[in-house]
Amino acid sequence: VTGTHLTVLAGGTGAAKFLRGLADVVPEEDIHVIANVGDDTEIWGLHVSPDIDSITYGLAGKLDEVRGWGLKDETFRCLEEMTALGMPSWFRLGDRDLATHIMRTELLRSGHTLTDVTSRIAQTMAVKAHILPASDDPVRTKIETPMGALDFQEFFVRDGWQPEVRSVSYAGAAEARAPEAVLKSIQDAKRVILAPSNPITSVGPILAIHDIRDAAMKFPHPASRAATMIS
Amino acid sequence: VTGTHLTVLAGGTGAAKFLRGLADVVPEEDIHVIANVGDDTEIWGLHVSPDIDSITYGLAGKLDEVRGWGLKDETFRCLEEMTALGMPSWFRLGDRDLATHIMRTELLRSGHTLTDVTSRIAQTMAVKAHILPASDDPVRTKIETPMGALDFQEFFVRDGWQPEVRSVSYAGAAEARAPEAVLKSIQDAKRVILAPSNPITSVGPILAIHDIRDAAMKFPHPASRAATMIS
Repeated sequence: VTGTHLTVLAGGTGAAKFLRGLADVVPEEDIHVIANVGDDTEIWGLHVSPDIDSITYGLAGKLDEVRGWGLKDETFRCLEEMTALGMPSWFRLGDRDLATHIMRTELLRSGHTLTDVTSRIAQTMAVKAHILPASDDPVRTKIETPMGALDFQEFFVRDGWQPEVRSVSYAGAAEARAPEAVLKSIQDAKRVILAPSNPITSVGPILAIHDIRDAAMKFPHPASRAATMIS
Repeated sequence: VTGTHLTVLAGGTGAAKFLRGLADVVPEEDIHVIANVGDDTEIWGLHVSPDIDSITYGLAGKLDEVRGWGLKDETFRCLEEMTALGMPSWFRLGDRDLATHIMRTELLRSGHTLTDVTSRIAQTMAVKAHILPASDDPVRTKIETPMGALDFQEFFVRDGWQPEVRSVSYAGAAEARAPEAVLKSIQDAKRVILAPSNPITSVGPILAIHDIRDAAMKFPHPASRAATMIS
């Protein structure tokens, strides 16, 4: 059975831009987004999902398009106070953006899945596309450097992508399961599309999840061959 | 052995005002504050200690003296976004104030005591008085109403002190221990002072902790008799 929806494997900034364009030419509710969680990190004890947020904010028309991340019309007063308190401030969480991370963290701690939380936030922002985290289990991109393994955000944001990269791995990917809705979204898609996202750090962690890789390999359309090529 | 310090049993707003005056007439480093934790609550998964914060902000000269709580020069942009996300917004956490609660929550989760965290926040704000939470164990003021038991903040802030009060209790007080520094502060004090704080909801939860009550009862100065009277 082939559905009417398009399924997009997506990272953050580039995908957000692509998805806004796509939503101009197809009904937004026919767009399924399988979002990378490999960039997810914990900042100040808060669960931050940068790619999911860029996609959600992008489709909601709330993304700061100059920075390419976070919300428009943002302030950083909590961050300034955090800096004064001696807490790490290299990951710049804005005051409005903080609401997303605080809510997500609270709902995850009280037993909701990342899928539930993502859907709830998208709904309150009137996003009609279906944003599906690639997994509710932790999958984390690790950058191996001469100084040891770094989380993606440490490498990219904190250290400004300067450390020498020896290898990249996806911690947790071997054990992670894709939610049933993700697999079904690929199986039933009219097209599976790779967003213009980094193949190693955005698409790679999605396809490193065995269930998703298997579903993508079985998909009988040309896009699945492209997916195979980059993986 | 009697020390040179004054030990003040303190609630929030009234105590903060008193302590600022006291710090004008005695060296601030000679002031020990034993702070009520019965008002502590969890908002959006964040540990909020309203009385400790009012005291810390007050002594740091950062308290909003018009509202009587929170920081001066505050904004509420995270709160506005939280409201839009459908999260409870009756407890008004400001953007700058949030830094305190996020930091406290993160440090408590990583194993620090409330005493450690309180001291660290006070130090970064250049407060020289010693602010000591009455206990590192949870003691929570519960207001029994016809609709059931409410946390103090639910009764006071959310429901605007309108529900009929049947009784007040201090959950956890029977099992809670006072940190050694609190007991020693009372034993060695030059004077033990009750701040102008609500006897039931501010001083009550402090003296409901057995260790503190015993130390206060043994204190050989007139102030300890006052403490006994109101308890």
